[in-house]
Amino acid sequence: MLLAFSTWPEIDERLKSSRTVIIPIGSNEQHGPMGLLGTDWLCPEIIAHAAEKSGDLLIAPTFNIGMAQHHLSFSGTISLRPSTFMAAISDWVNSLARHGFDRIYFLNGHGGNVATIEAAFSEIYSDYSYAAEPCPFILKLRNWWDLPGISRLCAKLYPTGHGTHATPSEIAVTFAAYPDRVKSHTMEPQVAPNGPIRDALDYRARFTDGRIGSDSSLATVEDGQKIIDAAVAGLIDDIAKFDAE
Amino acid sequence: MLLAFSTWPEIDERLKSSRTVIIPIGSNEQHGPMGLLGTDWLCPEIIAHAAEKSGDLLIAPTFNIGMAQHHLSFSGTISLRPSTFMAAISDWVNSLARHGFDRIYFLNGHGGNVATIEAAFSEIYSDYSYAAEPCPFILKLRNWWDLPGISRLCAKLYPTGHGTHATPSEIAVTFAAYPDRVKSHTMEPQVAPNGPIRDALDYRARFTDGRIGSDSSLATVEDGQKIIDAAVAGLIDDIAKFDAE
Amino acid sequence: MLLAFSTWPEIDERLKSSRTVIIPIGSNEQHGPMGLLGTDWLCPEIIAHAAEKSGDLLIAPTFNIGMAQHHLSFSGTISLRPSTFMAAISDWVNSLARHGFDRIYFLNGHGGNVATIEAAFSEIYSDYSYAAEPCPFILKLRNWWDLPGISRLCAKLYPTGHGTHATPSEIAVTFAAYPDRVKSHTMEPQVAPNGPIRDALDYRARFTDGRIGSDSSLATVEDGQKIIDAAVAGLIDDIAKFDAE
Amino acid sequence: MLLAFSTWPEIDERLKSSRTVIIPIGSNEQHGPMGLLGTDWLCPEIIAHAAEKSGDLLIAPTFNIGMAQHHLSFSGTISLRPSTFMAAISDWVNSLARHGFDRIYFLNGHGGNVATIEAAFSEIYSDYSYAAEPCPFILKLRNWWDLPGISRLCAKLYPTGHGTHATPSEIAVTFAAYPDRVKSHTMEPQVAPNGPIRDALDYRARFTDGRIGSDSSLATVEDGQKIIDAAVAGLIDDIAKFDAE
Amino acid sequence: MLLAFSTWPEIDERLKSSRTVIIPIGSNEQHGPMGLLGTDWLCPEIIAHAAEKSGDLLIAPTFNIGMAQHHLSFSGTISLRPSTFMAAISDWVNSLARHGFDRIYFLNGHGGNVATIEAAFSEIYSDYSYAAEPCPFILKLRNWWDLPGISRLCAKLYPTGHGTHATPSEIAVTFAAYPDRVKSHTMEPQVAPNGPIRDALDYRARFTDGRIGSDSSLATVEDGQKIIDAAVAGLIDDIAKFDAE
Amino acid sequence: MLLAFSTWPEIDERLKSSRTVIIPIGSNEQHGPMGLLGTDWLCPEIIAHAAEKSGDLLIAPTFNIGMAQHHLSFSGTISLRPSTFMAAISDWVNSLARHGFDRIYFLNGHGGNVATIEAAFSEIYSDYSYAAEPCPFILKLRNWWDLPGISRLCAKLYPTGHGTHATPSEIAVTFAAYPDRVKSHTMEPQVAPNGPIRDALDYRARFTDGRIGSDSSLATVEDGQKIIDAAVAGLIDDIAKFDAE
Repeated sequence: MLLAFSTWPEIDERLKSSRTVIIPIGSNEQHGPMGLLGTDWLCPEIIAHAAEKSGDLLIAPTFNIGMAQHHLSFSGTISLRPSTFMAAISDWVNSLARHGFDRIYFLNGHGGNVATIEAAFSEIYSDYSYAAEPCPFILKLRNWWDLPGISRLCAKLYPTGHGTHATPSEIAVTFAAYPDRVKSHTMEPQVAPNGPIRDALDYRARFTDGRIGSDSSLATVEDGQKIIDAAVAGLIDDIAKFDAE
Repeated sequence: MLLAFSTWPEIDERLKSSRTVIIPIGSNEQHGPMGLLGTDWLCPEIIAHAAEKSGDLLIAPTFNIGMAQHHLSFSGTISLRPSTFMAAISDWVNSLARHGFDRIYFLNGHGGNVATIEAAFSEIYSDYSYAAEPCPFILKLRNWWDLPGISRLCAKLYPTGHGTHATPSEIAVTFAAYPDRVKSHTMEPQVAPNGPIRDALDYRARFTDGRIGSDSSLATVEDGQKIIDAAVAGLIDDIAKFDAE
Repeated sequence: MLLAFSTWPEIDERLKSSRTVIIPIGSNEQHGPMGLLGTDWLCPEIIAHAAEKSGDLLIAPTFNIGMAQHHLSFSGTISLRPSTFMAAISDWVNSLARHGFDRIYFLNGHGGNVATIEAAFSEIYSDYSYAAEPCPFILKLRNWWDLPGISRLCAKLYPTGHGTHATPSEIAVTFAAYPDRVKSHTMEPQVAPNGPIRDALDYRARFTDGRIGSDSSLATVEDGQKIIDAAVAGLIDDIAKFDAE
Repeated sequence: MLLAFSTWPEIDERLKSSRTVIIPIGSNEQHGPMGLLGTDWLCPEIIAHAAEKSGDLLIAPTFNIGMAQHHLSFSGTISLRPSTFMAAISDWVNSLARHGFDRIYFLNGHGGNVATIEAAFSEIYSDYSYAAEPCPFILKLRNWWDLPGISRLCAKLYPTGHGTHATPSEIAVTFAAYPDRVKSHTMEPQVAPNGPIRDALDYRARFTDGRIGSDSSLATVEDGQKIIDAAVAGLIDDIAKFDAE
Repeated sequence: MLLAFSTWPEIDERLKSSRTVIIPIGSNEQHGPMGLLGTDWLCPEIIAHAAEKSGDLLIAPTFNIGMAQHHLSFSGTISLRPSTFMAAISDWVNSLARHGFDRIYFLNGHGGNVATIEAAFSEIYSDYSYAAEPCPFILKLRNWWDLPGISRLCAKLYPTGHGTHATPSEIAVTFAAYPDRVKSHTMEPQVAPNGPIRDALDYRARFTDGRIGSDSSLATVEDGQKIIDAAVAGLIDDIAKFDAE
Repeated sequence: MLLAFSTWPEIDERLKSSRTVIIPIGSNEQHGPMGLLGTDWLCPEIIAHAAEKSGDLLIAPTFNIGMAQHHLSFSGTISLRPSTFMAAISDWVNSLARHGFDRIYFLNGHGGNVATIEAAFSEIYSDYSYAAEPCPFILKLRNWWDLPGISRLCAKLYPTGHGTHATPSEIAVTFAAYPDRVKSHTMEPQVAPNGPIRDALDYRARFTDGRIGSDSSLATVEDGQKIIDAAVAGLIDDIAKFDAE
């Protein structure tokens, strides 16, 4: 069930049987010379929407802009400051909790979001903790690549060149979902360098085409579909456990 | 050209010929018993993506959550506080301006967003105004229903029952774009009441099924397509004028 | 009854019979070569204080600084950032609501304030809307030129050259109230240009003497008095309707 | 010269000879059973406007709402949170500094404002101090009762019963300026108690009619005029020293 | 009893007999050529920890960074903006109040902190004052040099050259507590100048070695111990009165 | 070299040879029935101060309060909201960077701080990234238990019962440094349970004595000294690499 394509009475009805909602969350940022700028929000959206077809899930609209300050030297990147990102997450959560959702699950597609999302959770919980009041909902963050089965699959598909940004796995997922958007590019060097992440100019100087440790050219539609399939199974499984908590 | 489906080098290339970007912006909120919760962000997205096919436009990802506090008594509504919304708009603008975009056009789908978006523009301009520095970009807000030709068309299509929330025109646009999501519902009363907009409980008491002044059941796929076609033409025209300024 | 010239026991007494309070709100900003910097807060103050003499009204102190970032290239302009303005409006409202006022009416004198005041109202209502609590007060914004009868009168008095900033009507109101402050200046051009409002340097370049679309030299003490008289009647009438809601 | 009653070209002209501006700042809060709610903003306004008649001074509009949280249990009090108050002071200063004012003098009428105004000054200076940039303006806070000659005069006029809130001196100043607003009330007890200032309910319990340590009934129009005269002389003198710094 | 060296069950036990907690609060900032950067947080910590040995006191960890923007032109100074400082004080208070402490006493070591701490108190109280709720705790600020007996002792020890920053008394306190950290320096001039405090560059230009009005070289270990002894007695006395309130 | 025990000229001198500064950062929060409330800020302080004796390091004052909202149901815990914590970190960094420090190293003692510190780094970098300016400093976060050699040593010392909160290793470090503060307590159960971390009431219900997965009673002074020795070596080594970057 896609929340945005439902009516409010349908959500009311849904709440009678389940109080769990999944928010695909990512970032719109450079993904090297052949990865789509939307990769990090497209991946969790693709996986969540695919899972919705086979599982009994409720998917919120996609939170498509995240914390990507380090990518701002590359055109097309849109970033929220951590403080803004936290305020927005808080407003999403308080809106959904208002309706009675008590299990709010963020399916994340951007590693750079993790710290800020967790800080946002702590900020939200703080209101209850200072007031000595029980928090009426549970927040959970899951990166899609941490869903059960994914890391093993990626290690098998990409024994070398997976890296950590503009990875072949994430690009493959977008290619599988949008085969008319497949792009190719000669990687130079084949595998990008590694290094620390700091501000945007430093990033651009270290990672000249935007990739970190990856060979994006390994991405194929076929592998992308395998990853999606595994992630769908993993997500349905993970939500079942979350519901059962 | 869809920004999220482009690579950063493609955006770099684009910036050589055009520094204009369009952001579809809306809200995810109740739209009465047969309107989709996503209506207000779907409409500008539908129009912008359709226009992108025929015009030389660059479309940013959709800003899908807006200021909808008054709808929070209806399940599925997600709202940002005005202060959060303003901070997020500021971060979007500063990100895009960082890349050299100097004409940033918000195609809006939610009347309730207007005041806050304008306040956000003033907040952004303030930095330059206090500092006596020239602002390197122009911000523009356009509601899709204010695009040239739309209001006349809607008046013709819906001589009565258009109203101001959950209107047949906006619902028709979503139906035309997503015919498999068409819903129907017996309106009771046929035309919803009018009244002031205040907090969420007050809203729910006044507008019991969520509509304001509208008869949503007038929406059809066919009329929706007519509105989309008119809006596409209007948008391409409006952007041409904006570029020429 | 002027709140600032009353004692707290008198306000306590007043609250037994009426819970409505009127806040004149405006801006201190350039008004062209012959308009007073205080025009936009003087007008609602003049009208409200005049109405207080004939009607049973409670007038709060004047909120004299508003959102005027676009006027900052002209000396004497004082502006609040929208975020500051919103915080201040919220504190005023929460203070007055604390005492039991449940109808808080802002009589506004500056078009540039409208978006931010409405965003402030939404921010204030949000607290109640997220919490699913009834808001104990009603907020209302009324521009003095939108009071019943004013626009027709101005159209009659100024068939051309009214414009939208440093208008003859607002300047006339201040002249009528402060005849010893009447100023004159040769308008050059007679009627100022029109155009969009952006940041302060852009504004100064477009509107070289500060006016927009107006011929301020049409202002006279006599016409100002007519406008004040009409506005007083309109305000008393508008408050009566507000009370009756 | 009153800024609000001037035009922007007049302020431009003024800036050629003087870059000093005086802001009367106070609070709108209960002042016991016979003191006006506006006392604390009226006093600095009265003194500054009187001084303007004999001295070559530029007076900004009055900042009429300050930090009065402790008075909120008494009807009519309007308070800004310290954080809001600081943001507003910062915006005033940045607006005035934008025009070239480099000596910004706050003539204060409310003891409860002092800490927050000084914190605001530090917040404003911080921007320059972190950036290692010279601050282009000087901020100064002066309570009107600390102007040269005032404390001695008050000690002479009110050997007992002056106290610290709803004092006969401040009430006398308002009575002298607005003799038609003179009020009287039997003080019970004659001299109000003293004690610490905390939150609003605590304040109301300690100081049942709002006064602290004072006998407001000592206020007379005549003494008020003496105080005004002394304050006018003191202000003109103080500004001369400030200009000469 | 030192809170940081206790366990939570010990604090639980403590709360059965006393609900008072003392927070040493200061600043880390330049103290002239021979004063330690930590002087202002070391002094209240030294006094509070010494008092804890003879009195039945509970001492929280030291709040060691305060508002020192004016000292930022001297290396080693660390400052919080007033707004940050206020937020942090609020969080400390809300944490301690959560456990049931109802008397929270700040023993301050930095004059530059006073305004901001008081503004923070007002911000904290505001929540209760707007809501018309009783505040469950009392906040108190005491500068260690204002403890009973200290000012007389310092006047006796330093008839000249005490001054207001990098004073011999505060330096002596640190020397007495940390005799291995004693430093010496030839003062030039012997007694530093006085003047107003503004931004950091202005401060550096006025007070070239950082001192204000003081001759730091008067500080000795012996006098420091006398001051500590007096302050310990004064603190125990002051807390007894605070408890009894 | 301890910054707080130095003078500003000494820091000036230091900056000629090294622009690196280490900030011990932790939290003041419950650590089970026998761990000190200060454990998480004491550990990095103990290690940093010990390392300072053998290495050429500059140690800032300890940042002793962190993000501990989940521990607020246990007396003595003091927590900063993530937003406050981020603002304070930003002010520390901007103060130190003002003096020329270009390598700012946070030695952290609290796992719950990690996300917020990283979010703070991103917030700080954002200013430079949006502005396309090079950031003049490098920020680094290192948990003391992640220093080279520590995890292996702890695994050897505590093959079972190490856990993740109130661990025997951190408690041992405090016992070694403060042997007069050694406490003991019968653990019940011997090894505490594991589980997710959410708000404070949820935490208290899950982890009844505060520990997570640990047997604090394994802590000894001797083992604590071994850990300190290893951490000192690890820290000196880590800083050398950081300096060399």
